[in-house]
Amino acid sequence: MQLVSLDDIRTAADRVRGQVLRTPLLPALWADADRPLWLKPENLQATGAFKLRGASNALAALDERTRGKGVVAYSSGNHAQAVARAAQLLGVPAHIVMADSTPQVKIDGTRRYGAEVVLVPVAERETTAHRLVDELGAVLVPPFDHPDIIAGQGTAGLEIAEDLPDVELVLVPVSGGGLASGIGTAVTALCPNATVIGVEPELAADTADGLRAGHIVEWPVEDRGRTIADGLRAQPSELTFAHLQTVLDGVVTVSDDEIGEAMRVLATRNRLVAEPSGAVPLAAYLHRSGELPRGRTVVVVSGGNVDRAMLADVLG
Amino acid sequence: MQLVSLDDIRTAADRVRGQVLRTPLLPALWADADRPLWLKPENLQATGAFKLRGASNALAALDERTRGKGVVAYSSGNHAQAVARAAQLLGVPAHIVMADSTPQVKIDGTRRYGAEVVLVPVAERETTAHRLVDELGAVLVPPFDHPDIIAGQGTAGLEIAEDLPDVELVLVPVSGGGLASGIGTAVTALCPNATVIGVEPELAADTADGLRAGHIVEWPVEDRGRTIADGLRAQPSELTFAHLQTVLDGVVTVSDDEIGEAMRVLATRNRLVAEPSGAVPLAAYLHRSGELPRGRTVVVVSGGNVDRAMLADVLG
Repeated sequence: MQLVSLDDIRTAADRVRGQVLRTPLLPALWADADRPLWLKPENLQATGAFKLRGASNALAALDERTRGKGVVAYSSGNHAQAVARAAQLLGVPAHIVMADSTPQVKIDGTRRYGAEVVLVPVAERETTAHRLVDELGAVLVPPFDHPDIIAGQGTAGLEIAEDLPDVELVLVPVSGGGLASGIGTAVTALCPNATVIGVEPELAADTADGLRAGHIVEWPVEDRGRTIADGLRAQPSELTFAHLQTVLDGVVTVSDDEIGEAMRVLATRNRLVAEPSGAVPLAAYLHRSGELPRGRTVVVVSGGNVDRAMLADVLG
Repeated sequence: MQLVSLDDIRTAADRVRGQVLRTPLLPALWADADRPLWLKPENLQATGAFKLRGASNALAALDERTRGKGVVAYSSGNHAQAVARAAQLLGVPAHIVMADSTPQVKIDGTRRYGAEVVLVPVAERETTAHRLVDELGAVLVPPFDHPDIIAGQGTAGLEIAEDLPDVELVLVPVSGGGLASGIGTAVTALCPNATVIGVEPELAADTADGLRAGHIVEWPVEDRGRTIADGLRAQPSELTFAHLQTVLDGVVTVSDDEIGEAMRVLATRNRLVAEPSGAVPLAAYLHRSGELPRGRTVVVVSGGNVDRAMLADVLG
């Protein structure tokens, strides 16, 4: 299987410049002395999550003629807004298929970027998306299972390596695996002394199981649906799993309570609002230090789209 | 009176590089179409506020011999941690005088950076600081009334002008006036078409009164103490007032309720935790649009040090 290369990620970085925020590394001065900590705040991307990187690269990689026919995505989460925003910046028509049970705020958020939102029963999302692709001659933009998406997410890893070349540990969330694949590829290529560890909720630990077993391990969707980290309920594809086997040094898991605690720490000590999924790597830093190497650590804060009520609840 | 110049601010920027975060401008995609909005997130500075800029510049400007004797500051707020952190980075001994009624979390925060915290009754803070200066031969670092502090805060304005040279409106909080003086100086020098407006709480609107009157107008400290924006209860000095008269195009005021609303918007739409003082300029954007020019707007989010309980309360 052809894996994404450092060159692919560098090409992606050139393509998305100006469309994606180059996020700074934020030093966390409260960290342990023997493992100084920096946060990579992808929650500050304009749509609130790293997903804008992959979507922007995937759309920019299309030739003019293909782009003109538009793009289609199915998602109720951060990928929907990312594709809508990337399409808006490039003047590409976008159709986003969402479950009719999606909260209005997410539908409105996607429409704000000029996308056509198509509401269908949740079971019909995928078939509707494929029908639209056929009817319109449009391109489907998947959330993680594509080299251009992985390379786009990898631009965050390129920035980490540029800003902290002597980084020793990178903690990144794992779900579909696009972000971990991309960041892992960039960091292992540029920082050979760095360890890259994926972090999963205990309640959706299919990748931890899979890497131990040496092959994808399916978890039932109703099991994965239990964690509050609603952005980490997907499973890797064959493409992302092959990357994860190559670039991750391991996966650790954290509990939902630990995720909530990490959200509190981010808000009160680092002035960052993270969604549960975005706080998962910090939960590992806080609660799994015994399983992790010491040294200069970067924690990826992958997203910050959380309801006000849940945020107040976590802080209260 | 000699005012701080653009060259002074450029010198400060060279001095503080590597000690101060170069904050990005964050686009707020939910803004009105005729006044696109960017946030300057100074709450992401390592100590949680812009104060690190001025303190770092003031300390870096001292010669080696003077530095060796140490620095003294009196503050219970963001200036205390800023001086402590700047001193730590330069290896300078720091004595911070705080009221013995200061919340433990702020005392601990200051001690974390290696500063010697001296606790005294609130009325004795200033005299204790001056006694320490005499005893130690140390230098007093004031929170705003010094050209090096103003020039340091002005580095934020330099960055705004670099990142958005065609900015049309900058909204900046006003209290002692160091930040507004510095940003105003940089922006008016580099972006001649930009309007720079100060924003104050209605409950501490001494600068709005003063600029209208053409001279400093004193508000009783008990009046200024009413606003929830606890970082905006100071008054300009003669030095900062002279800058504000020169570089501000006006001052608008906002209510405490409007400040709370702006904190909510920052947390939920832009994933940023702001303290009340840090949300004051956005409150003007949201609630005083009739008093402000249209066009490309930058709002300075000056700080984010807020108690978890207050944050939960504002969000709940």
